[in-house]
Amino acid sequence: MTISDSLGGLNMKDYYQLALQVHKENKGKVSIKSKVKVENKDDLSIAYTPGVAEPCKEIAKDKEKVYDYTLKSNSVAVVSDGTAVLGLGDIGPHAAIPVMEGKSILFKTYADVDAFPICLNTTDVEEIIRTVKLLEPVFGGINLEDIAAPKCFEIEKRLDEELDIPVFHDDQHGTAIVVLAGLINGLKLARKEFKDLEVVINGAGAAGIAIAKLLLKVGVKDVILCDRKGAISKDRQDLNSIKREMAEITNKNGQNGELKDVIVNKNVFIGVSSANCLTKDMVRSMGEKPMIFAMANPVPEIMPEDAKEAGAFIVGTGRSDFPNQINNVLAFPGIFRGALDVRASKITENMKIQAAYAIASVVNESELSVDMIIPSPFNTEVAKKVADAVRKAAIEDGVARI
Amino acid sequence: MTISDSLGGLNMKDYYQLALQVHKENKGKVSIKSKVKVENKDDLSIAYTPGVAEPCKEIAKDKEKVYDYTLKSNSVAVVSDGTAVLGLGDIGPHAAIPVMEGKSILFKTYADVDAFPICLNTTDVEEIIRTVKLLEPVFGGINLEDIAAPKCFEIEKRLDEELDIPVFHDDQHGTAIVVLAGLINGLKLARKEFKDLEVVINGAGAAGIAIAKLLLKVGVKDVILCDRKGAISKDRQDLNSIKREMAEITNKNGQNGELKDVIVNKNVFIGVSSANCLTKDMVRSMGEKPMIFAMANPVPEIMPEDAKEAGAFIVGTGRSDFPNQINNVLAFPGIFRGALDVRASKITENMKIQAAYAIASVVNESELSVDMIIPSPFNTEVAKKVADAVRKAAIEDGVARI
Repeated sequence: MTISDSLGGLNMKDYYQLALQVHKENKGKVSIKSKVKVENKDDLSIAYTPGVAEPCKEIAKDKEKVYDYTLKSNSVAVVSDGTAVLGLGDIGPHAAIPVMEGKSILFKTYADVDAFPICLNTTDVEEIIRTVKLLEPVFGGINLEDIAAPKCFEIEKRLDEELDIPVFHDDQHGTAIVVLAGLINGLKLARKEFKDLEVVINGAGAAGIAIAKLLLKVGVKDVILCDRKGAISKDRQDLNSIKREMAEITNKNGQNGELKDVIVNKNVFIGVSSANCLTKDMVRSMGEKPMIFAMANPVPEIMPEDAKEAGAFIVGTGRSDFPNQINNVLAFPGIFRGALDVRASKITENMKIQAAYAIASVVNESELSVDMIIPSPFNTEVAKKVADAVRKAAIEDGVARI
Repeated sequence: MTISDSLGGLNMKDYYQLALQVHKENKGKVSIKSKVKVENKDDLSIAYTPGVAEPCKEIAKDKEKVYDYTLKSNSVAVVSDGTAVLGLGDIGPHAAIPVMEGKSILFKTYADVDAFPICLNTTDVEEIIRTVKLLEPVFGGINLEDIAAPKCFEIEKRLDEELDIPVFHDDQHGTAIVVLAGLINGLKLARKEFKDLEVVINGAGAAGIAIAKLLLKVGVKDVILCDRKGAISKDRQDLNSIKREMAEITNKNGQNGELKDVIVNKNVFIGVSSANCLTKDMVRSMGEKPMIFAMANPVPEIMPEDAKEAGAFIVGTGRSDFPNQINNVLAFPGIFRGALDVRASKITENMKIQAAYAIASVVNESELSVDMIIPSPFNTEVAKKVADAVRKAAIEDGVARI
């Protein structure tokens, strides 16, 4: 298979041409809609002056009322600096807009969240943090997107601490939550528990690190993160601060070496790396009932048929033309829907974990199989179940404000 | 008449209650709409990955293509810091949101412009300038709104110089353009020319100063600006820098004194000040066929019936229940529609003047009367004519980019 191989009805080349055409004809994807009419004097006097002064005065008296009278209760900023866009890399804030608009319309379509793309003319950590804080009044949540590692970690951490609205870096947590959902269902089929899992994650960027942290949180036995130089361990002298931090909490036995060395006897491989880096021999070297999540796009770390041939029990990819598509759209719309509904001040780890269980729960027992551990991205039940779980978890965690 | 007097069918109290109710039921007024469907795998592959990478790559190659493939071609940020909101003053960015949302829906309703409210958590001039510059990628224009004088002048001037998209402070220029439109038609009825006009402007804030500058640009004989301490002249020692600048170009005879002193023999009064500050005696002291634009809201500088009784030839106010309503909605939607259509890099003085002539032109000869110098804000012809005139002027001025 190559990049130009067919993806269902259309082949890749068709998608590329159609994508240009659709973006050009529509001049982007996001537009504004008025929720009220302003067609006559009465309308204008209610939606604008003099009537509009009344909600203004109410909010001036009690800032919390901003949620009652304005778009803030349902709005999310999709914020990027354009430094790590898809697989395209640092293409800048203008070129990043189509992705952020895409995210915005997915928010709207899947969870009726009003998301607006914000692409910033700066790549400076402090300036990004400051700008998002300055934008807070009109937004009920912040979805960070396609900001390069490692600065994305600092930006998310600081905004999470310094803002009282939820902040969520989707490239990290969206992927982590959907992988976790896949594992939850994979474990049922493999009749294993989290404590039985020894995981190798290839790719120590935003997604890899978030997946590692979330899996440790739910109790997997061990995780080894690999970057281009091999396993991340305390012995490595070339690590940045986030990787040093990860070396402290992962790779308990201090294994060194390349992916092919550390994957031996592990039972989960998670790839957020690059095409074709996982070989059949490596899969053969893994432990019992290995689960493979090969999410490099468009060409996965190993093609599903090869992984299966080499003994993989379950294979998931990022692609829609193979079973078990790990797609963030299963997570972020419902997560923000739930968080906004209860005016959550943040997205806790528990909210993320409950979101994963909610996604997993949509695949019922009769459907569950090695080729069906993750619901379709078009299953409209998913966002509702995720929102329910997130609302409940926010209340349990004491971060809900209504 | 008092504030609670009726405004047409509903009285003020009704508007206030309805305004609260409508804002609460709808949770604000602005929502997001997707211009494309994402209901199946093909949709998703075109609007999002993998197809979305194509417009991204095109823009990365040629930044100007951002206008072809994204919302930028039709989007305007309505930016405020909440320091001068309606007559409410410095109520902060959260309380300002209902006004900015109102502006956004007027943009959409009158000119199909996609405007989004941006209320900033800062009142610092440099920080506001920097933030707007950082937000530039997704916006095709910047509408500044309800930012206190004198800092609004510096913010607009700097952004106009430093950005290559149009920047327009509506409180200044929107009002100035509609007043100019009223004067254009008033002159026809009075059979006068701009060079015959001696104007007193009461109120030397954002609107007053912009009106003075625009009227001087079209050739009125003289303008005297008054603030709370009286006429602004070179003799005043208490002026801030913008008022000092205005003292150089207005009040050619160096008149000093209060409003009642300097209004004698002038033939235009423009009020952007406060209720009831213009008396019948002052109107009686004015020159031939005096024109009065008393725009304080909700109670004007003089009530129209009093002004008429004292000899006013034409009276305009900011209110919808009197003839000749000076309403910015006649200007800003069409101005941005025209500017966006030709990708104007700025809004020139000529574009503003042509917008005023376009507004005036909508009142045809048979309709024109002292009680009909300004078209209704609900006349859908206005925005189209303004947009036409602005496009043409932008091309003439060499600021159009398509």
